[in-house]
Amino acid sequence: MDRNQIKVLIRQMTLEEKAGQVTQLPSRYFAIQGSQLTGTETKLGISEEKKWLCGSILGKLDAVSMRNIQKENLERSRLQIPLMFMTDIVHGYQTIFPVPLAMAGSFDPGMVRECARISAKEGSAAGYQVTFSPMVDVVRDPRWGRVMESFGEDSKLNCDFGKAMVEGYQGENLKDPDRLAACVKHFAAYGAAEGGRDYNTSDVSEFRLRNKYFPPFKACIDAGVKLVMAAFEALNGIPATANPWLLQDILRKDLEFEGTVISDWGAVLELIKHGVAEEEAEAGRLALESGVQIEMATAAIVKHIEVYVKKFPHLEAILDEAVEKVLILKNELGLFEDPYRGVDPEREMRELRSPDKKRAAFHAATESAVLLENNGILPLTKETPVILTGPYAESKNILGPWSVDGIVEDAITVKDGLILKGGRIKEVIQTAYEEVTEQDSDRIVQTVASGDVVVLALGEPELWSGEAGSRSVIELPEHQISLLKKLHEHQIPVVVLLFNGRPLDLRKVKEYADAVLEMWFPGTEGGNAAAALLYGEKNPSGKLAMSFPYGSGQIPVSYDMAPTGRPKADLVQEPRYKSQYLDIPNEPLYSFGYGLSYTEYDVQVNGKIVRQEQEYLVPVKVTNLGNMTGKTVVQIYIGKKKSLVARPVKELVAYKKIELQPGKSKEIVIPIEEKTLERWIPGKGWTKEKGEYTILVSNDGQNFQRMELTVG
Amino acid sequence: MDRNQIKVLIRQMTLEEKAGQVTQLPSRYFAIQGSQLTGTETKLGISEEKKWLCGSILGKLDAVSMRNIQKENLERSRLQIPLMFMTDIVHGYQTIFPVPLAMAGSFDPGMVRECARISAKEGSAAGYQVTFSPMVDVVRDPRWGRVMESFGEDSKLNCDFGKAMVEGYQGENLKDPDRLAACVKHFAAYGAAEGGRDYNTSDVSEFRLRNKYFPPFKACIDAGVKLVMAAFEALNGIPATANPWLLQDILRKDLEFEGTVISDWGAVLELIKHGVAEEEAEAGRLALESGVQIEMATAAIVKHIEVYVKKFPHLEAILDEAVEKVLILKNELGLFEDPYRGVDPEREMRELRSPDKKRAAFHAATESAVLLENNGILPLTKETPVILTGPYAESKNILGPWSVDGIVEDAITVKDGLILKGGRIKEVIQTAYEEVTEQDSDRIVQTVASGDVVVLALGEPELWSGEAGSRSVIELPEHQISLLKKLHEHQIPVVVLLFNGRPLDLRKVKEYADAVLEMWFPGTEGGNAAAALLYGEKNPSGKLAMSFPYGSGQIPVSYDMAPTGRPKADLVQEPRYKSQYLDIPNEPLYSFGYGLSYTEYDVQVNGKIVRQEQEYLVPVKVTNLGNMTGKTVVQIYIGKKKSLVARPVKELVAYKKIELQPGKSKEIVIPIEEKTLERWIPGKGWTKEKGEYTILVSNDGQNFQRMELTVG
Repeated sequence: MDRNQIKVLIRQMTLEEKAGQVTQLPSRYFAIQGSQLTGTETKLGISEEKKWLCGSILGKLDAVSMRNIQKENLERSRLQIPLMFMTDIVHGYQTIFPVPLAMAGSFDPGMVRECARISAKEGSAAGYQVTFSPMVDVVRDPRWGRVMESFGEDSKLNCDFGKAMVEGYQGENLKDPDRLAACVKHFAAYGAAEGGRDYNTSDVSEFRLRNKYFPPFKACIDAGVKLVMAAFEALNGIPATANPWLLQDILRKDLEFEGTVISDWGAVLELIKHGVAEEEAEAGRLALESGVQIEMATAAIVKHIEVYVKKFPHLEAILDEAVEKVLILKNELGLFEDPYRGVDPEREMRELRSPDKKRAAFHAATESAVLLENNGILPLTKETPVILTGPYAESKNILGPWSVDGIVEDAITVKDGLILKGGRIKEVIQTAYEEVTEQDSDRIVQTVASGDVVVLALGEPELWSGEAGSRSVIELPEHQISLLKKLHEHQIPVVVLLFNGRPLDLRKVKEYADAVLEMWFPGTEGGNAAAALLYGEKNPSGKLAMSFPYGSGQIPVSYDMAPTGRPKADLVQEPRYKSQYLDIPNEPLYSFGYGLSYTEYDVQVNGKIVRQEQEYLVPVKVTNLGNMTGKTVVQIYIGKKKSLVARPVKELVAYKKIELQPGKSKEIVIPIEEKTLERWIPGKGWTKEKGEYTILVSNDGQNFQRMELTVG
Repeated sequence: MDRNQIKVLIRQMTLEEKAGQVTQLPSRYFAIQGSQLTGTETKLGISEEKKWLCGSILGKLDAVSMRNIQKENLERSRLQIPLMFMTDIVHGYQTIFPVPLAMAGSFDPGMVRECARISAKEGSAAGYQVTFSPMVDVVRDPRWGRVMESFGEDSKLNCDFGKAMVEGYQGENLKDPDRLAACVKHFAAYGAAEGGRDYNTSDVSEFRLRNKYFPPFKACIDAGVKLVMAAFEALNGIPATANPWLLQDILRKDLEFEGTVISDWGAVLELIKHGVAEEEAEAGRLALESGVQIEMATAAIVKHIEVYVKKFPHLEAILDEAVEKVLILKNELGLFEDPYRGVDPEREMRELRSPDKKRAAFHAATESAVLLENNGILPLTKETPVILTGPYAESKNILGPWSVDGIVEDAITVKDGLILKGGRIKEVIQTAYEEVTEQDSDRIVQTVASGDVVVLALGEPELWSGEAGSRSVIELPEHQISLLKKLHEHQIPVVVLLFNGRPLDLRKVKEYADAVLEMWFPGTEGGNAAAALLYGEKNPSGKLAMSFPYGSGQIPVSYDMAPTGRPKADLVQEPRYKSQYLDIPNEPLYSFGYGLSYTEYDVQVNGKIVRQEQEYLVPVKVTNLGNMTGKTVVQIYIGKKKSLVARPVKELVAYKKIELQPGKSKEIVIPIEEKTLERWIPGKGWTKEKGEYTILVSNDGQNFQRMELTVG
């Protein structure tokens, strides 16, 4: 269809049919096996007939069910409008990749693009056309459980990875039946929830919104993302779901979004809880009027549309526009031509969990892990007798939150991984998360002989992070630390593997362990990846996309803090009257950009910065000083010496991941796009400031080489 | 002089003389004993002659020195312009009152007005005309050490106490030689320093600035405050010292301030560190241009004024206006008529540390202490054998931060207080703050006999809070807790007295103590107040002006949080997908408004709310159910059922402290001013929303009686 035909179609629709198109209902209402309901859960209070007017369905599905539901819909639909199917494919559908916070640590958007392409193949084969991904909420508070779904604390990483995922899901042509439309979320500043408490209000200045929180959405919009999801929370006093400034002024005018705006689950009715709507009818009207075009999981609009249009005639045009957005999306997906769009059980069988997908998941998990500490104990030889213990020794619960369709049985445990790699496991002693008995820890100590190594697979239970997984204390359970301490006190060599969805306070782990390998929630191939890294078949190259603080008391902490008028020299004892804590450093324990390797790299600035077209080219020479092939991430940060605003001391503007053989050097040039120098300045808008810049080059986020750049 | 004469005077002044008037130098440059320097400390780089052009002096002084300096100034001043003398009299000059955060807990602005009046008498006698007080920064982060200087987390309390202090300092007529001009600080949102790290940048939406942070400044301006101090930090990217939006658009136009704007100490030169100025000349120019009218402790403007006016001719008019503000203030203080304005050593001797002042300090300390726990052990009889221990057992360091001129020797220790009241002290075992030896704790345990009570005076060292006193962990030193725990384990009755400048995580103290009395830093009469309260000569009536959280991981927490779309019922186990922490409640351990008494009160709503002129009258009946006379604070909160914005569930709008004999009842009416219903709503400005309100009545900030109010 063309735009005109869509307009003609809309003219044929009744008011109720239109309202149905802007309604999205959970698949469980369509006799599909239940999906877990979250938040405001309401009996919809609509007739079976009205239910079938809905324009899209979300949640649990498979190819057969999808075909059945679509068939019934087409039998019922007066104007033959196909249904659209959506779900949360966040870091994989059935084959699960590492959580996004981990994948951002790869500093390799191309890899994530490929993961998204694979997720789209699986998801589309199962009957979906849209995924509620990527999430590009900039996050600086590890108490918030959904940090695992984000690409971390840096705005540019969220831009790059968000864009890559959109490209990976959507491809060149959405009609291609193995693609999915992407939905970027959550607009906006959902990650700034006060106190790190999920769904809590956020309060962020326009200055920070424009410079940090909005750009990743803009990047996804520029990459052609089809949907934007409004956030749950109230931003600066106005719930995002009923926020015309956000959904119209910013999203439509400034960020030039032309696709469809969808609410989050139940968020329309939650406007009542926010206190801005009195009852269902008003909630639906506020959302529609503010710019929401699909109401997810509730049915306020379709129930009350007749009253709306009678009382507020201008709403009909707003409704028409919403319907148009929905129909355009269906049309772009090719659903009018083929409502079953490549969904058949045979393709489903072929695509799901196939070996190529597992290989991609393995690759992603190895690229995402971050080596935090290593006194030389790693890599292990395969002959080393290993005592494997901890709650994640043989746990399959390593897929991570928001992997609802992931196949847990497919997960490779650490134990499986070590065995598959031919390692020598002397004993496996699985422990609980929160209680390690004296007996267990004694047994572990007694089992260890000289020359053995303990691989201690620690971590938070999966549900300690993820949606609604907020914690005030960001430490490992006490007993896990006690066990590690005991091993340390017995001078037993310990390699800690970490499985978790948020940055943790690792002061004690750092103190007691010989090596620490942050696996995050690595997904289906986690155990294989852990084994490959432990045995040095793969060389760790991941970097932190989010700083690991000295406990909750240092939150928020990020590498891109503002300078202050009384800056403290890092890690130096300063007199009073500096901006500092009396009890901890200002810098986090492990900074953004940090991560070790089994080899060492020398990173040298290699000449002057050259301007070429719209880029500044930074010449860097990297040398692998060690004995093992490896990859590292060269990171380029800028700071402005003098600015109209108090700009962060450093901000990431470019990076490059390169691989080097032992002893080899490579001269590379890393381009800084001129656009990345621009900042939003109150009263001026986006401005490229002229003058002197500092360029900082690093491959660990902690040691920097300094260059100067003059921008004319 | 009249305004016109001031203008004539300005016309006679040279450019340098004018620039001198906007310069304020520390008294140490004038051969007075040194004051402690903070922050950017510069050698001024100006001549002796130019030094004497300065318009005002701050810091350490006494009557004799003031007269000497003023005399030399008048001998040198071509136009006979008197110097003005300022200092930080924050909670008393030599006689020290409790820290402001404590005094706010009295819920008695009248008391604070009296304290300010007394401080003005002392301070003016010593040669000062201006004090840098009150501080009305709304604070929600106990990591920030300067919370002790604030009136707490509630905007209205900051309004009321700020106003009361301004009235107390300034009186009816500033020419009255025992009054001081007040300087309200720090404009604005200094208390929102990120991470609670002093001087750190703050990021606050206009919505919150207008509704929470600006109103206390407006209240002080309406009370006639003569000066406003710009804050140290960058607010939303722009340092407050070079922020025309803050210092002009908001302060002058919206808040209608007509007095003098002063920078904080060294803040003008700190614009270089903030990155918005390249060097001294630019820093001074930016500050002047933005609206700073007195440059504190540096001399950028006076050094570079010739260049400014040559390069930026519009600056001369701005300078003239600044000079006019300074001269108007001097004139209002009567300095042109009497440059020595009631300063003579004899009056100084008479006023300082006089008995009436001590009495006021005693009263303030008894009204400010908050009884947090009491299992019936309190009050003690004077016959009870007391073992007094802990770091504050006989410490005089109870004046609190920002009491630089306070006389430490005058401080009454807990030991002194108990003895003066005729208590029976069996033994005093003073401990250190951070280390309590096994020997000490054993000795304490062994000393206790049946029938004895241990009074354990715990707390943070004074410098753990106050300016630059930021801490990531808000707990008492470990050894203090261990000692308390040990006593508890030996089933020894323990009364904990707390001396501290910030809310602390008191979970363990609550668990192990039989009673907990929060003394804060109580000032000169602290020990007498503690004894009067312990022995029941005074009945505790203070309420918390700032919530005590479950550790740093719950920060920020305040009673006036926004509702969220997925609210959690307080203290109830909820399923997932609610706005909650998995490991702690949402509510703080002790909420704003909380505080016990030795008696109990019944607070009952007593009829309907009646509107009368510009007020809503809330009828309440309060009964003293116990056996002791006491005071309680009836607190009235409102919530709006439906609003244009996500308003806090409850906000304090009125309160009344009343005293009742045992068994007596009182029917009172508490007026809610209509104006307090107004909220600043984006796009609408200050708005009184019509419709249904909830009125919550409480005397402990935790249990509420509910009423309805319809506003037409």
